[in-house]
Amino acid sequence: MTTRINQQVVLASRPDGELQLANLRLENVELPPLRANEILLETIYLSIDPYMRWWMRAEKSYNTPIGIDEVIVGATVSRVRASRHADWKEGEWVLGFSGWRRFAVSDGSGLRRLDPTLAPPSTALGVLGMTGFTAYAGLRNIGQPKPGETVVVAGATGAVGSAVGQIARIRGARAVGITTGADKLAYLKNALHFDAVVDYKAPDFAEQLANACPDGIDVYFENIGGAIWDRVLPLLNTYARVPVCGVMSQYEAPTGSNGPAGVDDRLPGTMAQIMGKSLTLRGFIQTEYAEAQMPDFLQEASAWLADGRLQYREHIVQGLDQAAQALIDMLKGRNVGKTIVQVGQP
Amino acid sequence: MTTRINQQVVLASRPDGELQLANLRLENVELPPLRANEILLETIYLSIDPYMRWWMRAEKSYNTPIGIDEVIVGATVSRVRASRHADWKEGEWVLGFSGWRRFAVSDGSGLRRLDPTLAPPSTALGVLGMTGFTAYAGLRNIGQPKPGETVVVAGATGAVGSAVGQIARIRGARAVGITTGADKLAYLKNALHFDAVVDYKAPDFAEQLANACPDGIDVYFENIGGAIWDRVLPLLNTYARVPVCGVMSQYEAPTGSNGPAGVDDRLPGTMAQIMGKSLTLRGFIQTEYAEAQMPDFLQEASAWLADGRLQYREHIVQGLDQAAQALIDMLKGRNVGKTIVQVGQP
Repeated sequence: MTTRINQQVVLASRPDGELQLANLRLENVELPPLRANEILLETIYLSIDPYMRWWMRAEKSYNTPIGIDEVIVGATVSRVRASRHADWKEGEWVLGFSGWRRFAVSDGSGLRRLDPTLAPPSTALGVLGMTGFTAYAGLRNIGQPKPGETVVVAGATGAVGSAVGQIARIRGARAVGITTGADKLAYLKNALHFDAVVDYKAPDFAEQLANACPDGIDVYFENIGGAIWDRVLPLLNTYARVPVCGVMSQYEAPTGSNGPAGVDDRLPGTMAQIMGKSLTLRGFIQTEYAEAQMPDFLQEASAWLADGRLQYREHIVQGLDQAAQALIDMLKGRNVGKTIVQVGQP
Repeated sequence: MTTRINQQVVLASRPDGELQLANLRLENVELPPLRANEILLETIYLSIDPYMRWWMRAEKSYNTPIGIDEVIVGATVSRVRASRHADWKEGEWVLGFSGWRRFAVSDGSGLRRLDPTLAPPSTALGVLGMTGFTAYAGLRNIGQPKPGETVVVAGATGAVGSAVGQIARIRGARAVGITTGADKLAYLKNALHFDAVVDYKAPDFAEQLANACPDGIDVYFENIGGAIWDRVLPLLNTYARVPVCGVMSQYEAPTGSNGPAGVDDRLPGTMAQIMGKSLTLRGFIQTEYAEAQMPDFLQEASAWLADGRLQYREHIVQGLDQAAQALIDMLKGRNVGKTIVQVGQP
């Protein structure tokens, strides 16, 4: 086999506050030849997700922090370009976790075969992948919305948020989306059919939110944290459930004794309200539920896609050299739907 | 029937910060004669609990705030002194919710008959009552300690805390108690057999707590809130459970937009840790579980009392005119075990 040059993106320096392009470095490295029982994967689609910024922080959390000079992690949809493994054939589509690189060598472990005739392969990263499943699992296991209840989600035009609102509606609940900007608000209302939308940058945000939730809030799907939580808290009903899958507002905050220590991550009155309203706050990473519930999810979500009840958008950026900017744009909330970098050609 | 004069304690003014004797007023009122299907109860024992201070706050929580000139609420063990009700006989012992008064007229609803030959009637307010059940239900439904896990409780010499630690040990878990003062620390260690005890007023409290929990914390039973939570948070393990039954440190804090707004009620980094460690925080009021689980509790806890695995202390204060001071003392942490006011003579 001929020597191939691989492209990859590594952590050049740990970001302090907002992620800068200079914190990441695109580099070329030589790819070793395949050994027996290995396959060569070419990344076609790379998933861009907020958690990547979290993993660049120095504190250990559920993950091990990405080390300096290490390749940035990420879920990938790839094609098998060469195989010395009996189970894998050249040309197959797979879902894996190659990270930010063009090529990856794999022994096949952790890969899931994709059928490109069932759904566009890129959806395995978004609406039929980790982000869709995060919404599904958080609602199924923690949020548990009942018909007629009110489900609120912030970052509602993001990949997780847009699925949360739509699945909540499929379950018979009212969906209230929080975002900002006329286009995004209109998209939630008109394309995704959220029952109400609220602009968190409006001066009367708290009042708007209260008006959008006349019966209070039964489920708040937390993926933002910070100042929005402060406005949600007084509206939560007794026995409200709060699945916590992310705190994006804090991913770029300075380090404190318990992790991020920005002004936004302080939760005034939270413990008293947890007690007084018998609230449930439950953090989760989707992997906790994946083994048991991914098959259900794929079946249900595929049907919802087919009958149009679950809509999605993909924001596809071309080229691994644009991945860093795509992540920065996502952290600034500039995306609508799932951000994906197309790395190789199918 | 002759006219009786009743003694009762009402809220004279809403406390601002620490409760003062002047906020409460002992008064005499005339007791109306019994009508058909009514009974006259004389309070023998009045339970003194931290939540009473919470209910004196102006904000609506799970309770309706006690109004000015209204009698202070509270659980009571009483005897039937007169009956015009077919179901109740003079002399019977009952558990009820008469509040801070000597006599109460009842139609029998909400009362539970007590058998004074099975256990001292006062225990129906403490170790075999609401406080014991709070510990039991919080562990059974939320904390769910497994053998070998570490359970931490603050206010550990209080009525709830002391039961939490002992029940955790009965379930096979390690119990770590947080309190202050040599006597209390020794009581936890020697009489209640906590596996480790920590003094929260020690300058090296955080280090002591970490040393007492070499395998981290799996269950933190929250009944204090504030600064102690801040030290517990970094030690919580992945999937740790936090039953929240009270935030005593905040009951006397000034009012904020979400309830108490003292420095202590701000939780830096909490949401990020909930996410990163898949934590469960769940508030509860014991009434949520009482109907379904009180019979189990009474059976189990009675057996534990009988075989000595569940120890308790009562701090009995004489006279309704001392109830206000007894509550103030409890809020300042001066009690050990269950605080009870003896109002009438058995």
